[in-house]
Amino acid sequence: MGVNENVQKPLDRLSEALASEMEAVNTLIRQKMSSRHAPRIPEVTAHLIEAGGKRLRPMLTLAAAKMVGYGGPYHIHLAATVEFIHTATLLHDDVVDESQQRRGRPTANLLWDNKSSVLVGDYLFARSFQLMVEPGNMRTLEILSNASATIAEGEVLQLTAAQDLRTDEAIYLQVVRGKTAALFSAATEVGGVIADAPAEMVQALFDYGDALGIAFQIVDDLLDYGGATETIGKNVGDDFRERKLTLPVIKAVAEADDEERAFWSRTIEAGDQHDGDLEHALHLLARHDAMHAARADALNWAATAKQALTKLPPHPIRDMLSDLADFVVSRVA
Amino acid sequence: MGVNENVQKPLDRLSEALASEMEAVNTLIRQKMSSRHAPRIPEVTAHLIEAGGKRLRPMLTLAAAKMVGYGGPYHIHLAATVEFIHTATLLHDDVVDESQQRRGRPTANLLWDNKSSVLVGDYLFARSFQLMVEPGNMRTLEILSNASATIAEGEVLQLTAAQDLRTDEAIYLQVVRGKTAALFSAATEVGGVIADAPAEMVQALFDYGDALGIAFQIVDDLLDYGGATETIGKNVGDDFRERKLTLPVIKAVAEADDEERAFWSRTIEAGDQHDGDLEHALHLLARHDAMHAARADALNWAATAKQALTKLPPHPIRDMLSDLADFVVSRVA
Repeated sequence: MGVNENVQKPLDRLSEALASEMEAVNTLIRQKMSSRHAPRIPEVTAHLIEAGGKRLRPMLTLAAAKMVGYGGPYHIHLAATVEFIHTATLLHDDVVDESQQRRGRPTANLLWDNKSSVLVGDYLFARSFQLMVEPGNMRTLEILSNASATIAEGEVLQLTAAQDLRTDEAIYLQVVRGKTAALFSAATEVGGVIADAPAEMVQALFDYGDALGIAFQIVDDLLDYGGATETIGKNVGDDFRERKLTLPVIKAVAEADDEERAFWSRTIEAGDQHDGDLEHALHLLARHDAMHAARADALNWAATAKQALTKLPPHPIRDMLSDLADFVVSRVA
Repeated sequence: MGVNENVQKPLDRLSEALASEMEAVNTLIRQKMSSRHAPRIPEVTAHLIEAGGKRLRPMLTLAAAKMVGYGGPYHIHLAATVEFIHTATLLHDDVVDESQQRRGRPTANLLWDNKSSVLVGDYLFARSFQLMVEPGNMRTLEILSNASATIAEGEVLQLTAAQDLRTDEAIYLQVVRGKTAALFSAATEVGGVIADAPAEMVQALFDYGDALGIAFQIVDDLLDYGGATETIGKNVGDDFRERKLTLPVIKAVAEADDEERAFWSRTIEAGDQHDGDLEHALHLLARHDAMHAARADALNWAATAKQALTKLPPHPIRDMLSDLADFVVSRVA
């Protein structure tokens, strides 16, 4: 909103700096989500993809390629690939979680049906693979196909680990790397690889995406319990009600006495929840300072992300990515 | 069963001729369906993949590569890719169709849940893309990623077209090419491409797979109404009950008078079915000779498949593939 560039949010500044490339990505996305034979495909896809998502992931690919001086056309394909993988994942996630709302609108599984969400998601996955083949670069194919496998593996792991009190921070990190950070780090890494950047810069780009993704997900999980401070998010307690074991709870469980452990076992493992349980959960999180501890982890990951950027050449976009890392955790600052 | 090779079924003879290659494919499949982090993945996959499927599709890849004299190792990866795509599709199909049985066993969505089927299917799709990247051959990547998109598009098209009486034979063919023939033709085509076979042989391999796949699906759809003759399949009428408009019905609808059209509209479009409706449907199919007409189409496609083989060099496997085309339609002969 501000006219002064410095008070703009980092994502808006990135959008501005990458406006022409993002325009090309959006054109390619619109072109590839069409289907000559099955009009249901563009209907469902458009519902989600035109809903005003922030296009954060494809922007990371464009930013990475630009920072290391890429001059070719293929970062556009890779960015569109990343957005298609993300969109396919959202469609399937909403089926798996039986979600009713996404980006402030009814989900596709609600508007159409689960069948359409599953099959259109499959179509977008397949489209993403067609798109990533086009640049003819084997290394980017490896990175993106590996990321897709890691994402699916993380989602399956979450199915079983989320309601198991033995899930520790190491397993949580694995789930988070799968469901969120794998696509962030693939997005930044392929931007460097397509530009033929030196190995240490590619590594730095990967590290930035990985750490940013982890910070991003921890913050999301914190906000679900209202954040570390007075900033109250909406829908507080969704993860609790859905019995998803996230970082704050994992930290509180690690410190729990017998009575507290029985509470978590009843509410999360057995799913036997009553009025007042969410309030008691928040009380236990506070007692063990779990929210602040999780927030400290998020800040550490943001610092790791910024540290990785120092291995890249100075560039205005590098500064925006650094601010972006701060911004991501500022939601729980 | 017979000791005389000539009375063995073509698929068994192919299995024998390709035994060592299929062993390598099975080893690779078992290796790639493992997951360090999420044991649910190999559980669900093994349930389906070890259930005694015929491995027809990967065998087509191996057969194609061998016929044109391939000497390298990568037909194994491509064959495993094809089987993974097929398995992922089955997992998602069973969710979409709410199926309870597959290959004579309870479906994964029944034994575990829809979530596991969706996410493990996604994992296998991603694995298939990792596998197809390994040979480092761009053309096979294009073919297989295009096939994946065509499959998903065919499935989405079927969602909307299957219960619409305006669906004609051209649309039916599109659905069938998507849901079945696209993977058959990709399976045979990549076998030729990886062997660097001349363009006209690659085309012949594609044509064989395409025509075989279409014949295969028409036969399947015929058997669902009991076949063209007295051979009675089990579960007669599943497609009718699920309101899937397949070739025999499309042919009967094309010839229907007003009263018959009202019947199809009520039972298939509106899904308002009562006792005796299946019998009446079978009666209408007989009145318009729709089963025999569909059977003639299947025989034509089998002939097209065999014709395509004549453009390939003489080879014992070529003869088995020719017999396979006959065998596929023999189920409704």
